[in-house]
Amino acid sequence: MKSYREELWFQTKERREFLNITPQVERVLQQSGIQEGFVLVNAMHITASVYINDDEAGLLQDYEQFLERLVPQAGTYRHNLTGEDNGDAHIKRQIMGREVVVAITNGRLDFGPWEQIFYAEFDGRRRKRVLVKVIGE
Amino acid sequence: MKSYREELWFQTKERREFLNITPQVERVLQQSGIQEGFVLVNAMHITASVYINDDEAGLLQDYEQFLERLVPQAGTYRHNLTGEDNGDAHIKRQIMGREVVVAITNGRLDFGPWEQIFYAEFDGRRRKRVLVKVIGE
Amino acid sequence: MKSYREELWFQTKERREFLNITPQVERVLQQSGIQEGFVLVNAMHITASVYINDDEAGLLQDYEQFLERLVPQAGTYRHNLTGEDNGDAHIKRQIMGREVVVAITNGRLDFGPWEQIFYAEFDGRRRKRVLVKVIGE
Repeated sequence: MKSYREELWFQTKERREFLNITPQVERVLQQSGIQEGFVLVNAMHITASVYINDDEAGLLQDYEQFLERLVPQAGTYRHNLTGEDNGDAHIKRQIMGREVVVAITNGRLDFGPWEQIFYAEFDGRRRKRVLVKVIGE
Repeated sequence: MKSYREELWFQTKERREFLNITPQVERVLQQSGIQEGFVLVNAMHITASVYINDDEAGLLQDYEQFLERLVPQAGTYRHNLTGEDNGDAHIKRQIMGREVVVAITNGRLDFGPWEQIFYAEFDGRRRKRVLVKVIGE
Repeated sequence: MKSYREELWFQTKERREFLNITPQVERVLQQSGIQEGFVLVNAMHITASVYINDDEAGLLQDYEQFLERLVPQAGTYRHNLTGEDNGDAHIKRQIMGREVVVAITNGRLDFGPWEQIFYAEFDGRRRKRVLVKVIGE
């Protein structure tokens, strides 16, 4: 069994942003040389998500609006009594998820027609990391 | 390390449906011949989920009602300005999740007493796929 | 490829509780002797979650409050017509997730600075299990 690991760094301009990171993950997969196995892609920070869905601008706004309606940034959170202001971001990240596991087949991400990997930032404007770990043969 | 892959195809009669796909995943696992490892089961489409919970008819109605109350099909979604009518389905799928990873032990799904694998369709009535990828030995 | 498996047992005093189980998972990982690979940690019961986020007391109360507001224990659930009283717990668990997959690098959980593994119980006060399965080399 082979394994390979790389970190991707991001710094968004806005507090909340959605970034399509599929090309970066594909590049890591090529680097790994692994043909059959799994790749794990996870946020290493706890106020951001990695998820898979469509790269359509309207949909990204729908996600933003849905999450902000359900868990408003300006809501009341006990976590913010610690001096933080990102209580909402910890909850938004749980709804969208921490990680994806993607099958690797013939050296490629084994995807359906519209699957794209996104990094969803809910408390950005600082350098944060995503882990890409590949295992297989 | 061995690996094995199969696609399962589904076409639901209703727009939204919950299908217990545990027997199909078990069959793929037997085909793989893998005794120890992981199986990844994921929707290959972005308006459907794969998740694990109980196969109880009332619960499936509770999920349907909860999701429809939170993200109504008839709501306003920017995604639908593209001509699609499934903005709600993209959000429902995020809440229920894309994938499950299940341990394989002694050639079996390593499950607790009530765990069952479900395919949750939120925009059905057409042929859609689930990927089953097994790695191990 | 090596694999290793252990079950962790929990019995909470309250119906709903959040337990940081990172030390137990690290101990299993040491037992496994695996240096590079993946560890899967999943609830084996369908009214509990395993998730990764911050170990901060206020945040845990925020999660509890958010989930109870969205899916009240005293709400009306068809599942409860079976004689159960945990319809809410099955939905709460879906929002928080069933499982995490964590990369193993140099024999350690490959974590960002604040990542901690939690067992979230939504219908406790009885013995329930978490599966830890490690694969790699």
